[in-house]
Amino acid sequence: MIAAAEVADFLRREFPQTRCVVEAVGDGTSTVSHEITVHDLRPGGTVSGPVLMAVADIALYVAILGKLGIIPLAFTTSFAINFLRRPAADRAVVGTCRLMKVGHSLVVGDVALYSRGQDEIVAHAVGTYSIPRGPSPDAASQST
Amino acid sequence: MIAAAEVADFLRREFPQTRCVVEAVGDGTSTVSHEITVHDLRPGGTVSGPVLMAVADIALYVAILGKLGIIPLAFTTSFAINFLRRPAADRAVVGTCRLMKVGHSLVVGDVALYSRGQDEIVAHAVGTYSIPRGPSPDAASQST
Amino acid sequence: MIAAAEVADFLRREFPQTRCVVEAVGDGTSTVSHEITVHDLRPGGTVSGPVLMAVADIALYVAILGKLGIIPLAFTTSFAINFLRRPAADRAVVGTCRLMKVGHSLVVGDVALYSRGQDEIVAHAVGTYSIPRGPSPDAASQST
Amino acid sequence: MIAAAEVADFLRREFPQTRCVVEAVGDGTSTVSHEITVHDLRPGGTVSGPVLMAVADIALYVAILGKLGIIPLAFTTSFAINFLRRPAADRAVVGTCRLMKVGHSLVVGDVALYSRGQDEIVAHAVGTYSIPRGPSPDAASQST
Repeated sequence: MIAAAEVADFLRREFPQTRCVVEAVGDGTSTVSHEITVHDLRPGGTVSGPVLMAVADIALYVAILGKLGIIPLAFTTSFAINFLRRPAADRAVVGTCRLMKVGHSLVVGDVALYSRGQDEIVAHAVGTYSIPRGPSPDAASQST
Repeated sequence: MIAAAEVADFLRREFPQTRCVVEAVGDGTSTVSHEITVHDLRPGGTVSGPVLMAVADIALYVAILGKLGIIPLAFTTSFAINFLRRPAADRAVVGTCRLMKVGHSLVVGDVALYSRGQDEIVAHAVGTYSIPRGPSPDAASQST
Repeated sequence: MIAAAEVADFLRREFPQTRCVVEAVGDGTSTVSHEITVHDLRPGGTVSGPVLMAVADIALYVAILGKLGIIPLAFTTSFAINFLRRPAADRAVVGTCRLMKVGHSLVVGDVALYSRGQDEIVAHAVGTYSIPRGPSPDAASQST
Repeated sequence: MIAAAEVADFLRREFPQTRCVVEAVGDGTSTVSHEITVHDLRPGGTVSGPVLMAVADIALYVAILGKLGIIPLAFTTSFAINFLRRPAADRAVVGTCRLMKVGHSLVVGDVALYSRGQDEIVAHAVGTYSIPRGPSPDAASQST
């Protein structure tokens, strides 16, 4: 397990396009957040689906990095999301991930998305990441 | 059915954040494309998953608008994607959608994503949109 | 909310082909189980995928009946499952469901499947049921 | 590629619980069918969801065996289905599969399900199978 700060540093450096903030990293869990701006909204003032998908995908990635170490080349192989309620347009989206399986080559986890400060889940995602073989996580970490 | 140009105008006006181009709209089908820039890449030089998800989601939305008219408030209720091959980093991503069911309240379609000029599918998505009730598509169209 | 015994009676009467046992029904939750027989196994001695899918689907249905009353015509509109670990061939499969959204026309829930007495999740499913509108089934209206 | 008859023999021998008939096997494609009996129906006279799931799962498996040879230990890792229309209660369900990716360890395909003789798709599924490593498909074939 590595620290939230180390994961956050890696994300900032290698994924500058994401605006997600790493809030916490546990043993196979993560919490990330994303402040909503006008660019994230679509007609009707709701948060666009792809924004929620991106937050959920990052939450999974952060939980994996926290569990296995910095593996830049881990990549999503499948992702599924159900949109359950309309998120608040004026609150950050918060995603909490738990990994359900950490295998040699595949990791599966699910993510619950909320509007900050509200109790009801706005979307639920399940995703699978592929973990590249060969070099151990440590070696992979050196290759960045 | 409405014309590709009309759908493209609507997208440009209401979804300025998408860089997707509407290439074609048929009877329950669509083709959209998205030029890849450095902002769409992740470590290893591959196109990031959320970029592909966003293109697939737009392809579905365009096919729905083409079929049912301009319905700004149609929204995704579920979305699932499998990433099959690594897309080319230097070619546009092209998404082709076909609607499999156009019901009163739900529309389901799938999307194949390709790197422009290449034959092999790089990702496959299935999504469901909810169509708001009440005003007919025509009335909805007038409300934009 | 209706009692587990009432849901179990309905299932036995209307779904005689399922061998699932209703173990518990809560407020938007359920637990069901299914004893494994040789007919449920496939080469290699593992529980076949469709058996696990059927248990998860019933767990969702039971949670919905418990929450909304006996609605015979509720039906699955989408279902997705990830198989995470090999279930024990000699233990019952137990499914626990929680509903994440109970809307007017759609209900979404997820199900964790376990081998009885073991801690690790063997499969995780997410499903959506459609709730018929309009004239409510007589039984449902009487029981709610 | 192996012949439909060989796949059918294998299924009959190793999966006696399935009533699916192998109708055709192509290069990464398959067609299977399943006669509907009263045991496959649920209240309202519709074909139960798990029956459709099982047919789609077998269609995928048949396409994989046809493409890679008899691999008894290939198993489903993920499966997702959308139910689009009510299947006819008095017609066989027919599933047609095409493989979208045949990788070293994972195979992904989709399946369209129809009521025999009718044009409209009743359900659409996407599934992933894991292919065990080590013995080549040929060796695996010998191990049965």
